[in-house]
Amino acid sequence: MMALPVITLDEIQAVADKAQVLDVVRSALIAHAEGHTQVPPPTHLTFDEANGECHVKAGYVDGSPYYVVKVASTFYGNHRAGLPSNSGAVLASSARTGRPAALLADDGWLTAWRTAATGALITHALAADNACVGVLGTGLQARLQIEWLSALRPVPSVAVWGRRSEAASRLAGELRDLGLDAYPAHRREAAARDCVITATAATSPLGSTHDFATANHVTAVGADMPGKQELPVGLFAAAAVIATDDHAQSLSHGDFGHAARAGAVGHEADVPVGAILRDGRDDRSTLSIADLTGVGAVDAAVASAILERLLGG
Amino acid sequence: MMALPVITLDEIQAVADKAQVLDVVRSALIAHAEGHTQVPPPTHLTFDEANGECHVKAGYVDGSPYYVVKVASTFYGNHRAGLPSNSGAVLASSARTGRPAALLADDGWLTAWRTAATGALITHALAADNACVGVLGTGLQARLQIEWLSALRPVPSVAVWGRRSEAASRLAGELRDLGLDAYPAHRREAAARDCVITATAATSPLGSTHDFATANHVTAVGADMPGKQELPVGLFAAAAVIATDDHAQSLSHGDFGHAARAGAVGHEADVPVGAILRDGRDDRSTLSIADLTGVGAVDAAVASAILERLLGG
Repeated sequence: MMALPVITLDEIQAVADKAQVLDVVRSALIAHAEGHTQVPPPTHLTFDEANGECHVKAGYVDGSPYYVVKVASTFYGNHRAGLPSNSGAVLASSARTGRPAALLADDGWLTAWRTAATGALITHALAADNACVGVLGTGLQARLQIEWLSALRPVPSVAVWGRRSEAASRLAGELRDLGLDAYPAHRREAAARDCVITATAATSPLGSTHDFATANHVTAVGADMPGKQELPVGLFAAAAVIATDDHAQSLSHGDFGHAARAGAVGHEADVPVGAILRDGRDDRSTLSIADLTGVGAVDAAVASAILERLLGG
Repeated sequence: MMALPVITLDEIQAVADKAQVLDVVRSALIAHAEGHTQVPPPTHLTFDEANGECHVKAGYVDGSPYYVVKVASTFYGNHRAGLPSNSGAVLASSARTGRPAALLADDGWLTAWRTAATGALITHALAADNACVGVLGTGLQARLQIEWLSALRPVPSVAVWGRRSEAASRLAGELRDLGLDAYPAHRREAAARDCVITATAATSPLGSTHDFATANHVTAVGADMPGKQELPVGLFAAAAVIATDDHAQSLSHGDFGHAARAGAVGHEADVPVGAILRDGRDDRSTLSIADLTGVGAVDAAVASAILERLLGG
């Protein structure tokens, strides 16, 4: 067979930029909301001894030249070996012949970018203008959520909470280096901002419904497999809008599913993120929640856009 | 990141042989029967315009150095562009760190081999000695089922049926080139042999229960996604042994599932292929059926064995 091109992260970064990724992600989420995608259920492997997990997602946007299968893993003890926790690669294949077209050896960065882009887009669409932001979590995705949001709107201040206070101080420092007014905060302080973003691997709620009572918008990006949970189920009962990037996946994998199973909201209480990105929202005075689990078709769209630049369509 | 090694089919074939693959597949099926594997549900994409489908499987055998995610596609119109129908690649990653270790650009051959090995092993275990064989189907997998079986036991004669009689004549000729006594046959003639192997993409039964009434053993390898079906449900009611390579997958994807949903047999009527390979079967005078859907952990075992030879464990 023809040798398969392996696209390195350097090559990907040479042709990808925030504006392009935001544009591609927005279009893919709208296509997904309108039913013009294929997104089979994601699957997982877990490695208890190594404290690792692997997520496999496939996706396709109708009419694209490529479909993709993405492997993204997080091994939480890798730092002890001097390795990053996140790894991964994306195999893109021709939607006309099925033949593998390229492997994007992105090391998990395409996932990080599309998650950042999805979060930033929906947070920007739903949070009040000039909302002060609280972020729960101090990892890469917590940083990217703020960084990409600030590419879409001014972010007046950012309160950062993490389980380890030194991690919160470090992230706040990194955000200040980007020109943002960021500082480490207590958990309740970060949860009480106008706009709250959760980006943790938590398996139980990061606070009570009361803790989030003053929030006007919450974007939750952490819960992406059964068993993970960031938000209290009661918060969903208080929300005027619940946006999910994928209805079925958020029910089975996300915070929305916890709330629906607990009876706090109906199983059909959500609206697609893509519909809000397409139509906007007039009333931003009441509580909105965006529950994101990561959509394979969005992965496909981002990888396709990069490959079209590198290889042609 | 480190450049990812891409292992070509030539390199794979240089270190893989039938005896090794049979041995690895046998061990993996036994490990799977004993619960020492991870096999998330397979997922699929379909491409109606291109008449193509893509199957994604992940798998891991406990204690292996690698887990794998496999993409295997069949695009039925590829021959019109001079391309093979089957494509695919296998991404192997470290089970200790999650980091991608290698891409096996096998073009679907590892899947073909493990399917051939699984089928040959269980057919050999369950079919009476010296059984004459009928094969329904004329594609690559039909040929491999016979070829690999004949590596395990003498195959006295092979009746080949296909929808297109010229394809049956071609395959019979290829099998004669391998030294086998093979000839094209009518459908009912092929289905009436002692041992029948079905390897088609059929979506409805290839014959009535009566057509298969004289068979002593049937191995069905074609039905690997919901909607495909090769065997009449009544045949399962007549079977003394129903062996499945994966219980849940055969229920959701295989012929066994059609029979169970039709009420012809109970949902727990099957035994694991691996248990039969481990323990053998004393009574081979009554009807046995093996329903194979393809187990991701077997893919993982085959890919791991090849990588261990090429890269070390």
